[in-house]
Amino acid sequence: MNKVLITTVPFADKNPLPLKLLEKAGIDYLINPIGRKLKEDELAEMVSDFDGLIAGTEPITDKVMSHGKNLKLISRVGIGLDSVDLLAAERRGIQVSYTPDAPAPAVAELTVGMMLTLLRSVHVANSQMHQGLWHRYFGRRISEITIGIIGVGRIGRGVIERLASFRPAKILINDITPEVEFSSMSWVQSAAKEEIYQQADLISLHVPMTAQTKNMIQYNHLKAMKEDAIVINTSRGGIINEVDLARALNEGHLSAAAVDVFEQEPYDGELRDIERCLLTSHMGSMSVDCRTRMEIEATEEAVRFLTGQSLEGAVPQEEYDVQRQGL
Amino acid sequence: MNKVLITTVPFADKNPLPLKLLEKAGIDYLINPIGRKLKEDELAEMVSDFDGLIAGTEPITDKVMSHGKNLKLISRVGIGLDSVDLLAAERRGIQVSYTPDAPAPAVAELTVGMMLTLLRSVHVANSQMHQGLWHRYFGRRISEITIGIIGVGRIGRGVIERLASFRPAKILINDITPEVEFSSMSWVQSAAKEEIYQQADLISLHVPMTAQTKNMIQYNHLKAMKEDAIVINTSRGGIINEVDLARALNEGHLSAAAVDVFEQEPYDGELRDIERCLLTSHMGSMSVDCRTRMEIEATEEAVRFLTGQSLEGAVPQEEYDVQRQGL
Repeated sequence: MNKVLITTVPFADKNPLPLKLLEKAGIDYLINPIGRKLKEDELAEMVSDFDGLIAGTEPITDKVMSHGKNLKLISRVGIGLDSVDLLAAERRGIQVSYTPDAPAPAVAELTVGMMLTLLRSVHVANSQMHQGLWHRYFGRRISEITIGIIGVGRIGRGVIERLASFRPAKILINDITPEVEFSSMSWVQSAAKEEIYQQADLISLHVPMTAQTKNMIQYNHLKAMKEDAIVINTSRGGIINEVDLARALNEGHLSAAAVDVFEQEPYDGELRDIERCLLTSHMGSMSVDCRTRMEIEATEEAVRFLTGQSLEGAVPQEEYDVQRQGL
Repeated sequence: MNKVLITTVPFADKNPLPLKLLEKAGIDYLINPIGRKLKEDELAEMVSDFDGLIAGTEPITDKVMSHGKNLKLISRVGIGLDSVDLLAAERRGIQVSYTPDAPAPAVAELTVGMMLTLLRSVHVANSQMHQGLWHRYFGRRISEITIGIIGVGRIGRGVIERLASFRPAKILINDITPEVEFSSMSWVQSAAKEEIYQQADLISLHVPMTAQTKNMIQYNHLKAMKEDAIVINTSRGGIINEVDLARALNEGHLSAAAVDVFEQEPYDGELRDIERCLLTSHMGSMSVDCRTRMEIEATEEAVRFLTGQSLEGAVPQEEYDVQRQGL
């Protein structure tokens, strides 16, 4: 009997369908018994028996795969592939699939909510009101500012589309694919990253984690931004250097920041002590509908593969090339 | 020389133009020296000398007016008139003007931001992350829920327009003017208040304070809502009974709430102790652009009146009728 290890948690928490799909296909499964994101060694120890992984963002390295003697499929619940050593998988003949479309709407909505919150200091007022303090903060509206979006894939595009009804003044975009098209939105213009750092009042990151984007925003980039700029990272931990962000904020630079993703999760670093830094616990994709869709799609891939059907969400060759060229 | 008392604070904090307008017109002014919302007696004591008020939401009662021997104009910075005894002003021949359009975009944006925050428990995650706790909350998206909007004037309409790009599933609206039109948005439907209480996953209030709306939502209405419903009040304090809201939340009813306006401000009541209740300090209109526009418009009215020109923002007869019929 085929066996699948489900490492991502929570799983099937709001909708039991993914587990039913496995049961119906006669596939045995185990859900991550540790109940949090696994470390490399924990996963290596756990993986030996299993034919497939239904995986979160834990490190699926060559070492992990070397312990997975039966491992034939890694099915990622989500879009990011920085946690998977694709080249090792390729060498070992392990297939990798993912669910790139499913999380985008949830991440985009979380991001727009963070923009509105930070622009009006809602998080600071809330924290202070619960302490019995009353201060009326001034804020800014979407139509009054220049917004910078770095990374215009599924999520960046989703953010831009949702901002449309707020009548944005100017959105500067930057993507490695320069021909990104927003012809119906006259307020969207391409710009170099450096121009965005200098001109934008609010900068939101929607790039994948690659060799090029890791540590992309460091102290000097933060200092190049406007003194009252706002920075939001709902993409991957470490794309903004967390220590540098804390340093800049502690020096009084930037009016606010929001961080949903961290180099090490659960996060417990110094951003904790900075009131104007909004912190969430990697919740970008955590809307019931998107999470359910991700889990179902990733499970369907595992079922397809382990019952001899072809994959529908196999990771495309470009993603392997990204890793070949760098990370 | 004409003298104006500016009671609303902060005033001309981000843009000095309103004060320059007064100076240029040769009008003397005093900005509220207490620096917070005035109580009736404080204002009554302060008002005697002045020809005009540039006013916030402090109570401008018959008693206050009786102390204002020279008072000829009340120019409200904002839209709500529940703080002004219009009938007393009418009897005493005191003109009243307001700036009904200026605050709407700022309030609408704050409200949409609160919706996105509450739907994803961002405020709770943020509070817990700053305490070193890591819990990944599930949430819902705009397109997955039924939204109820009670009051579809300038602000309610602004909220509905901004939600359009989130592809809402269903928006139920209720207004005292039943012919409110949203023909271009098939997802907007009229409903009775009771239907909204029962069916909506998220209810946002955008009504003025009148005899009909004061205490409109009490304990039994809250309990009629879904167990995991969300309630937002950015309209006026006391439209939702605050004590009842705290009671319902403390009993575990409602998944979240946001309150920006309170019966007594600064607020220091029991909602303070409820983590899933997002609290802000009457910040609805506090975007720099809207606040500036409100201050300039209200100041221009004062200048017009005190230099013998006619008012452009005189409060219309309907508003007097509202008070005549009730409050």
